[in-house]
Amino acid sequence: MATPHVVGILGGMGPAAGADFVRLFVQACGEHLRRQGLPVSDQAYPEHWLAQVPVPDRSMALDRPHSGGHQPLEPMLQAMGRLAALGATTVAVACNTAHAWHSQLQARFPQVEVLHVAQEVARSLAARGVGRVGLLATQGTYRTGLYDQALREAGLQCCIPDAPGRERLMQGIYQGVKAGNLALARQCFSEVARALADQHGVSTLVLGCTEIPLGLDATAGLDGMALVDPAALLARALAEKAYAAGG
Amino acid sequence: MATPHVVGILGGMGPAAGADFVRLFVQACGEHLRRQGLPVSDQAYPEHWLAQVPVPDRSMALDRPHSGGHQPLEPMLQAMGRLAALGATTVAVACNTAHAWHSQLQARFPQVEVLHVAQEVARSLAARGVGRVGLLATQGTYRTGLYDQALREAGLQCCIPDAPGRERLMQGIYQGVKAGNLALARQCFSEVARALADQHGVSTLVLGCTEIPLGLDATAGLDGMALVDPAALLARALAEKAYAAGG
Repeated sequence: MATPHVVGILGGMGPAAGADFVRLFVQACGEHLRRQGLPVSDQAYPEHWLAQVPVPDRSMALDRPHSGGHQPLEPMLQAMGRLAALGATTVAVACNTAHAWHSQLQARFPQVEVLHVAQEVARSLAARGVGRVGLLATQGTYRTGLYDQALREAGLQCCIPDAPGRERLMQGIYQGVKAGNLALARQCFSEVARALADQHGVSTLVLGCTEIPLGLDATAGLDGMALVDPAALLARALAEKAYAAGG
Repeated sequence: MATPHVVGILGGMGPAAGADFVRLFVQACGEHLRRQGLPVSDQAYPEHWLAQVPVPDRSMALDRPHSGGHQPLEPMLQAMGRLAALGATTVAVACNTAHAWHSQLQARFPQVEVLHVAQEVARSLAARGVGRVGLLATQGTYRTGLYDQALREAGLQCCIPDAPGRERLMQGIYQGVKAGNLALARQCFSEVARALADQHGVSTLVLGCTEIPLGLDATAGLDGMALVDPAALLARALAEKAYAAGG
């Protein structure tokens, strides 16, 4: 086997999601090795670096773009530069909302491929023949239309919660997952998920914020719903890039 | 609050354990913030970097030190240098066996504090008034006496499995956890743990290899045994260093 490529993970948004992304990536690498019939040993994994850096709140920055407050782009560019210097040929950003700055990150580092989470999700769902999905995400992600656009381009329809539902999701993310209150998170997320399923008749839910899967799982009483974790699909895409030939 | 120090995690030994160590570190940081009554937000976490680099097998290198095969020290030194260049003031090594090279890593990078997992475990157990513990670890860790020495210096007695038990642990680590067969891992680890408890009358078990907690948990039928995960104690020590004043 050729030496895999070095890859990077831009995290810290939040740190628990970044840690979980590494777990998903390592799992995806193991699955890749087993699919290829290769031995799974410590040395068979690609070299990878996780940057967990403090980045100003992404949703707030998108909410008040001209407030003059701290903006997320600069620390993300700095961490990207360091990942590139460490030899990363592909980087995944472990935060959905941060993809609002994807084109700026990609433009500044043309030598690095910056994966796009919504494009990976759209590609995967289209391949499975899914036509309509519900999206659970932050206000920032809804506002940027991150998933709308990628899903539409892949021929899928994207349904979103009403305004109180979107507020309730933010509560689950901030007062729930980020503050360590997983019971509150589970309550907020499952309530909005059920309402979305009832109103729009969707049976596939995209958990479009890395904090949401940490507080919503198969135990949430969402019988018959397919829960799509974009982080898992992004991690799999990063693993495939690491093991890709050439470069 | 002052900006926390940048810290580093030297992982890849194995990658699943490295990923889990970041999870434990993030959890320890959240606990620190809550204990201090500080708000828990993405921006309150210390900047931290995880290096997951391919490192030749540590146990094998300790088993055959003069075989001329690939040695673990060089790639560990290289990754340490990169973590130091990223600004890390303290580094934790997410592998027990790799601590056989702790003094070399520390000597080469005097400006960085390299934490020592066995010393953190010994300190913590002594503070809890524990007198005798059983140690589950790799052959490499047994051979180096890593925990023996640190525990003895802290006034604790360290009991280890017999030779077939030590072989069975290696099977659980390599054919079990590292190869993704958790059922086998659980079987090997719990069998050796029970034998150790029966033979030596210990009620505290140190899980002295980062792969062991991934395959041994409270469901393993070890009623009344206290399972000590050195990675959790090391992660807590790293969090305390990151938030320490001065520097």
